[in-house]
Amino acid sequence: MQVTLGVIGLGLIGGSLALDLKHRGYVGRVLGVENNPGNAETALRMGLVDQVVSQEECIGKADIIVVAVPVGTAVKLIPAILDKIGPRQLVIDVCSTKSQICHAVKYHSRRPQFVSTHPMAGTEYSGPGAAQTGLFDGRACIFADAEQSAPQAVKAVEELYRVLNMRLTFMNADQHDVHTAYVSHISHVTSFALALTVLEKEKDEKHIFDLASGGFASTVRLAKSNADMWVPILTQNRDNMLQVMDTYMKEIQQFRDAIATFDEARLRELITEANKIKRILK
Amino acid sequence: MQVTLGVIGLGLIGGSLALDLKHRGYVGRVLGVENNPGNAETALRMGLVDQVVSQEECIGKADIIVVAVPVGTAVKLIPAILDKIGPRQLVIDVCSTKSQICHAVKYHSRRPQFVSTHPMAGTEYSGPGAAQTGLFDGRACIFADAEQSAPQAVKAVEELYRVLNMRLTFMNADQHDVHTAYVSHISHVTSFALALTVLEKEKDEKHIFDLASGGFASTVRLAKSNADMWVPILTQNRDNMLQVMDTYMKEIQQFRDAIATFDEARLRELITEANKIKRILK
Repeated sequence: MQVTLGVIGLGLIGGSLALDLKHRGYVGRVLGVENNPGNAETALRMGLVDQVVSQEECIGKADIIVVAVPVGTAVKLIPAILDKIGPRQLVIDVCSTKSQICHAVKYHSRRPQFVSTHPMAGTEYSGPGAAQTGLFDGRACIFADAEQSAPQAVKAVEELYRVLNMRLTFMNADQHDVHTAYVSHISHVTSFALALTVLEKEKDEKHIFDLASGGFASTVRLAKSNADMWVPILTQNRDNMLQVMDTYMKEIQQFRDAIATFDEARLRELITEANKIKRILK
Repeated sequence: MQVTLGVIGLGLIGGSLALDLKHRGYVGRVLGVENNPGNAETALRMGLVDQVVSQEECIGKADIIVVAVPVGTAVKLIPAILDKIGPRQLVIDVCSTKSQICHAVKYHSRRPQFVSTHPMAGTEYSGPGAAQTGLFDGRACIFADAEQSAPQAVKAVEELYRVLNMRLTFMNADQHDVHTAYVSHISHVTSFALALTVLEKEKDEKHIFDLASGGFASTVRLAKSNADMWVPILTQNRDNMLQVMDTYMKEIQQFRDAIATFDEARLRELITEANKIKRILK
């Protein structure tokens, strides 16, 4: 008998995941849950899901339920889903912060049937219209606090992500949130702030963007990211964000001080140190 | 009789420019000047120039002399070149800041034979090995304070950049430096600072980069940029840089305050405003 997949939230991640799991034959049938009627229609038209159903019907019928809604909603929704599932069902979340979710279900009797993951893929676009095949191929997927899930549940979810060609990594939820603060969340804040800086200047200098080129586009690209997704990520990861932002502002201040005093030796030192990022970037 | 081009500084910009002007038939012969013997050898091996000569020989023989050295050096070099040229020679610079250069030659008797330009192309790589054909195609080229150059000199340089398929824009040098502070120079500082922030964290968290994905790479890419080029840009554009950095830090601080106080409404407001960058980015 083939697996029925339920996907709650048919955005970029939920939609892309449904698409590849279905087309690669891992699941037989995909039931989608989507509150926004326009998004539901898009998802059906694009063939991301076989049917859009109510949350109740999804929870009642799906073997595996993927929660792909913004993390603020997910924190409340996941315990409520666990309250309702039977002993053979599995629940997965795909959210970008893990501590609060894992904390919220820690003592739930169905905790072993829940696997908390973060497939690290995406673009600056959102919604089902942004869904694409191959989005996850070759990317990292984090399993958070997997020791609190039943071994057979983890195994099933590993298999699911292997179908998506992801590289699997295991860490605890708190460690995940520290790491993503540094290599993902802060990048969004720096892009948002850069966009605001230049948009503000545009009020006086109408043509300020005329000279913008590839370098600017690259650093500001993430500023297109969606508020629904990013507001709860930033507040849920508050403590780590404050830490990384304080370090970041200290670094910006070092550049400011060196520029203000024409300290070329210090600037050279800072830039040469920053160049060590070459070791990391391809 | 065909034009002899002299290029002083065979880096990414000087090298790429020589390559396309020669191969597209705009110039007959290219003489390069390069202090670094390794770079000189690379430029010859890659066919960027026909011959590497001394600065004196270049100034003596070239019809058009392109100054493509870091802007700190260029400020001193350009007046010295103008001291030596004859009445039919042309000098162009291709530096990323324009105010100090234009100021340095403002009252020079050969000022009409100098055209100050900024072809806005490049990558995060440097040196002749990074030179590539087509680098300038479709990109913007700024002519700064062009009214201080002789009309026939401007016309000749326009023709040169049209061979490189550039879109020509005219503005005064000070305005150029304001604009580039906002849409180019600040992006480099934000990337350098982000690289330093995560490299610093790596000292305690060895695997911090394991989860880095496309978004991080995009925002930190410019941190690979070369100190020789960027130290003088940042100090020459000091006043504009301080202004843009202060605005930028204020924006970062707004995010910090909203995150610290869990002010989701304010965060949503900031992100929604930043999203207006979509109007600018493709």
